[in-house]
Amino acid sequence: MKVAISLGDLNGIGVQLALKNHKIIKKYCTPIYCIDKKLIKQAAKLLNIEIPKDFIIFGEYNYFKINPGKISKKSGKFSFDSFKNAIKLAKEKKVDAIVTLPISKEAWNKAGINYSGHTDYLRAYFKKQAIMMLGCNKLYVALFTEHIALKDVEKQLKTKKLFKFLISFKNSINYESKIPVLCLNPHCSDNGVMGDESKLYKAIKKANKFLKKDIFFPIVPDTAFTKKNRDKFKYFVAIYHDQGLSPLKALYFEESINISLNLP
Amino acid sequence: MKVAISLGDLNGIGVQLALKNHKIIKKYCTPIYCIDKKLIKQAAKLLNIEIPKDFIIFGEYNYFKINPGKISKKSGKFSFDSFKNAIKLAKEKKVDAIVTLPISKEAWNKAGINYSGHTDYLRAYFKKQAIMMLGCNKLYVALFTEHIALKDVEKQLKTKKLFKFLISFKNSINYESKIPVLCLNPHCSDNGVMGDESKLYKAIKKANKFLKKDIFFPIVPDTAFTKKNRDKFKYFVAIYHDQGLSPLKALYFEESINISLNLP
Repeated sequence: MKVAISLGDLNGIGVQLALKNHKIIKKYCTPIYCIDKKLIKQAAKLLNIEIPKDFIIFGEYNYFKINPGKISKKSGKFSFDSFKNAIKLAKEKKVDAIVTLPISKEAWNKAGINYSGHTDYLRAYFKKQAIMMLGCNKLYVALFTEHIALKDVEKQLKTKKLFKFLISFKNSINYESKIPVLCLNPHCSDNGVMGDESKLYKAIKKANKFLKKDIFFPIVPDTAFTKKNRDKFKYFVAIYHDQGLSPLKALYFEESINISLNLP
Repeated sequence: MKVAISLGDLNGIGVQLALKNHKIIKKYCTPIYCIDKKLIKQAAKLLNIEIPKDFIIFGEYNYFKINPGKISKKSGKFSFDSFKNAIKLAKEKKVDAIVTLPISKEAWNKAGINYSGHTDYLRAYFKKQAIMMLGCNKLYVALFTEHIALKDVEKQLKTKKLFKFLISFKNSINYESKIPVLCLNPHCSDNGVMGDESKLYKAIKKANKFLKKDIFFPIVPDTAFTKKNRDKFKYFVAIYHDQGLSPLKALYFEESINISLNLP
């Protein structure tokens, strides 16, 4: 499998991760690093790491002086160009996937790039509702809503929207076992005593009917991620950011990554 | 230390836990079980467990037939009477604390007891704002709001109310190290981009000023419970139910208990 790797902000940690871990990375895939010769040479010299002989690079970039730890317009622009080149390789089917190393959102901003991050750009570029899923092979959590205020979560929870999300999610992961969907309220509302789960229940019912299989089911949020449940279920759907990510990061912070699903 | 133990619903697991674990319990305290001779005899016979010789009992109760696994009015009434006797012992300073074994809220309801649970009754009885804290000696999480709908959480978050809560909490645990307070929104609102943390920040500032020490500080919710933070902090304040209890139960479901603080 070929994977395009965008180097992220060169004033950040990405290039160090790539150079140091190339030996491990190439066990899993053939990486193509979106950086050019002059820049990787500069980085390698600064880091005092030799460039591996089979370090395949791609693309042309404006040269600039790397300033470790500094937020800069030039480094921001580079990270965006590197990311765009990775997407280009994927679009032309020259790679099977892309992996992005960390950018600085502030540096993107300085460089006049008006996207809040990788996922945001991917959504705009492919005109598709990318699904944000975080996790590792022990546990994956997909987020129905992402970076919104807590008070707005309930308003965003509409039957049709959640139904579409569940179908897209199911199709993206190609998985046939049961998937718990965390309810909105404590104890799944205790039969309506605190809040209302009817939209969520309707969306689940509709999705299972559409899929002709009982894949999704509602689950009480605070006990969703107990050991017993984690032994039974691998994928979970969270309705809002902290509902899914707090338990995930409590358990598997170091080994988890962010995955964009539902893209070409 | 003397501890009054209410037996909970006799059709439930409480009496079995007490009889089976008495040997372990008495290593930590002198337990006084709120049950009478005839009922404990009936339970012990059903369970085929001998009553330990040093099994101290307290109180008089209506006799009834134990029906394992059944919700009943009589068993509900017993569990409430047992609980009230435990409180009586505490109020008269004959014990240092009480421990409650599980009740059936449905059985309380059948018996015409109009409290939603132990904490609710304790609040009414002592006319004090009991603080609900869950956890084990590795991690404790106190809840600022409890059983309310998610959409109501933001409305409940008032500076004065949170300030009072923080002070009561600090006084209840007698602890001098730093205590993180989880923000309301993802990423602590990213400087107001999603939601508003100003009331929370003000309450923390006010509490630290009152305590003349920087005890409380705001923390990003989704990374609050990572290993690194758990190594540094033992007590956490969560603003709402699932924010605190999902990570706690993901990590320490089996060993955690519910503790009512801020009571006489």
